[in-house]
Amino acid sequence: MHNLGTGAAGTAADALAPLSASAMDAAGARQATLTKPPGALGRLEELSVQLAGIAGTVPPPLPSPAAIAVFAGDHGVHAEGVSPWPQEVTAQMVANFCGGGAAINVLARQAGARVVVVDVGVATPVVAHPSLLDRRVRPGTANLATGPAMTLDEARAALDVGATMAADLVADGARCLVAGDMGIANTTPAAALVAACTHRRADEVTGRGTGIDDATLDHKTAIVEAAVARCSGMSPLEVLAEVGGLEIAAIAGFVIGGAAARVPVVADGLITAAALCVVDGLVPAALPYVVAGHRSVEPGASAALAHLGIEPLLDLDLRLGEGTGACLALPLVEAAARILGEMATFADLGIDA
Amino acid sequence: MHNLGTGAAGTAADALAPLSASAMDAAGARQATLTKPPGALGRLEELSVQLAGIAGTVPPPLPSPAAIAVFAGDHGVHAEGVSPWPQEVTAQMVANFCGGGAAINVLARQAGARVVVVDVGVATPVVAHPSLLDRRVRPGTANLATGPAMTLDEARAALDVGATMAADLVADGARCLVAGDMGIANTTPAAALVAACTHRRADEVTGRGTGIDDATLDHKTAIVEAAVARCSGMSPLEVLAEVGGLEIAAIAGFVIGGAAARVPVVADGLITAAALCVVDGLVPAALPYVVAGHRSVEPGASAALAHLGIEPLLDLDLRLGEGTGACLALPLVEAAARILGEMATFADLGIDA
Repeated sequence: MHNLGTGAAGTAADALAPLSASAMDAAGARQATLTKPPGALGRLEELSVQLAGIAGTVPPPLPSPAAIAVFAGDHGVHAEGVSPWPQEVTAQMVANFCGGGAAINVLARQAGARVVVVDVGVATPVVAHPSLLDRRVRPGTANLATGPAMTLDEARAALDVGATMAADLVADGARCLVAGDMGIANTTPAAALVAACTHRRADEVTGRGTGIDDATLDHKTAIVEAAVARCSGMSPLEVLAEVGGLEIAAIAGFVIGGAAARVPVVADGLITAAALCVVDGLVPAALPYVVAGHRSVEPGASAALAHLGIEPLLDLDLRLGEGTGACLALPLVEAAARILGEMATFADLGIDA
Repeated sequence: MHNLGTGAAGTAADALAPLSASAMDAAGARQATLTKPPGALGRLEELSVQLAGIAGTVPPPLPSPAAIAVFAGDHGVHAEGVSPWPQEVTAQMVANFCGGGAAINVLARQAGARVVVVDVGVATPVVAHPSLLDRRVRPGTANLATGPAMTLDEARAALDVGATMAADLVADGARCLVAGDMGIANTTPAAALVAACTHRRADEVTGRGTGIDDATLDHKTAIVEAAVARCSGMSPLEVLAEVGGLEIAAIAGFVIGGAAARVPVVADGLITAAALCVVDGLVPAALPYVVAGHRSVEPGASAALAHLGIEPLLDLDLRLGEGTGACLALPLVEAAARILGEMATFADLGIDA
């Protein structure tokens, strides 16, 4: 059982259906008739089959418009000096997202996608803005170096924020969801979640985040190692509460909610990958709805995706978060759907292939 | 000297300028001020600097609209049984491009790019169409297994077709060029060009093309090996004529023409990679204008790009040609330009970074 309760995330988890096997079979059969050598479009062909399975139709609907939810939260572990940036930068970047000046805004405009900014737990004051949704569960997590980051109820509440957001965006017309994150110090809880879920050593999954020196990396790795040691024997929800983050929990709920709404959810970098590890523990049936947008430079991201058996589309040395790598992958997802829907067949051309 | 004569390709080669070092410096400096950790956008940042150098301005202009030229030609070596497809498929696919049903048409529509189809030397009859340009140098090359594929004058004429096409498309408003190819059996001359230019063994660069069995691959590799042996001591233009193809020569000219017009030229798979090896021999100053769109499954493509020191943007197991991999990379090229032009700086936010 998923132990998510009766909130939005639990309801979404209960509603989950497997991908449509018949639509996937039909999509594969149609690929074989298109005017190209079999398999010549490589990963796009696999992706088109997945999209057909998600929607249950062949061709699948175009995954547009997409909607990007950037979940923002702060982290008590910031007090340990794991990031070179002051905690206030989370709130300042929230203002930047609202003002349209961040990288994700630029990429979203290009993709024709809307951006919603969700405050799940920023610790310092944020300026109200029409694009900013106040869904604050608590003002940042507690310090995971010294105790649980949050309670089980807080983790469930953050999961519900994400699941509700996914349902609302799909109800408003989104046909594809992108999860983004903002949270100074959030690569520390993300690394801890990945280590706890994949059973990798802390030094295999802990990276430099926004840029730290060797000594700080050693310190960060030691914090991750000690926190993960406390997770032994815990359930997935307990692990999330012990060493996770509010925005990470919200992203996990967002993935579950998107899957319940039968739309593709495009994953971004390390923070999303950590959330996917949580989803794998709580509601693994949601994972077939996920498309991994890119491979982050952060080692924990690759470890998580390998553990989950998901191959990312892009590998461009990105390590920004915000949903940027996922947003860059949106045209590839759209291309996969269009190929299946728009290409001529050999029969159309009168060629006996 | 490039030995291209006084036609369009030679004129373009003479007009080539290096990328603007001052614009590249200014682009790098601006990247450091944008609201993200330094380097967090990875390859996109490098690409933005290249685009600034190409255009000579910061930010660079958006690389849109793009124009895609699909160069079609046939190959005498088809008579050796190196492809499972009949030669007539080249002409049939030309009709498919004109009708809008091929993969490149689907991807071009999504990207908002126009497609022009250029017959540089199809061997069998093609149906006239407003989208089809008749620039036939000869009806397919001669069989490179038994002698030179074409004369030096024919190679120069095909190079001129491509260079003229690039100049015309830029004059018509294209701000980015994509080279595509169609030609049954063209992975054989492409592998030969790559082997001759990179000094790799034939079996390292010869692949299965549209799909051949082990015995046919051995036969194809032996043909490549014997043809390359004849190229010892030849000039780049002589190698192109001896073992190349009409559409490959046209793509080489297209790259030179695009560089002379100071627009980015996005390269596709093996056929474009072989053309880039030719460009490297003839007019290496054109290569900084090239963006490699993707890494083809064909081993010769990776060998060529490694030889040229160019890292592709996408790696999606594609092996179709037509310009499809390059077209899929266009949104990444546009994103790189937009990031530099549209993102807020830390100073804009009042953050002391």
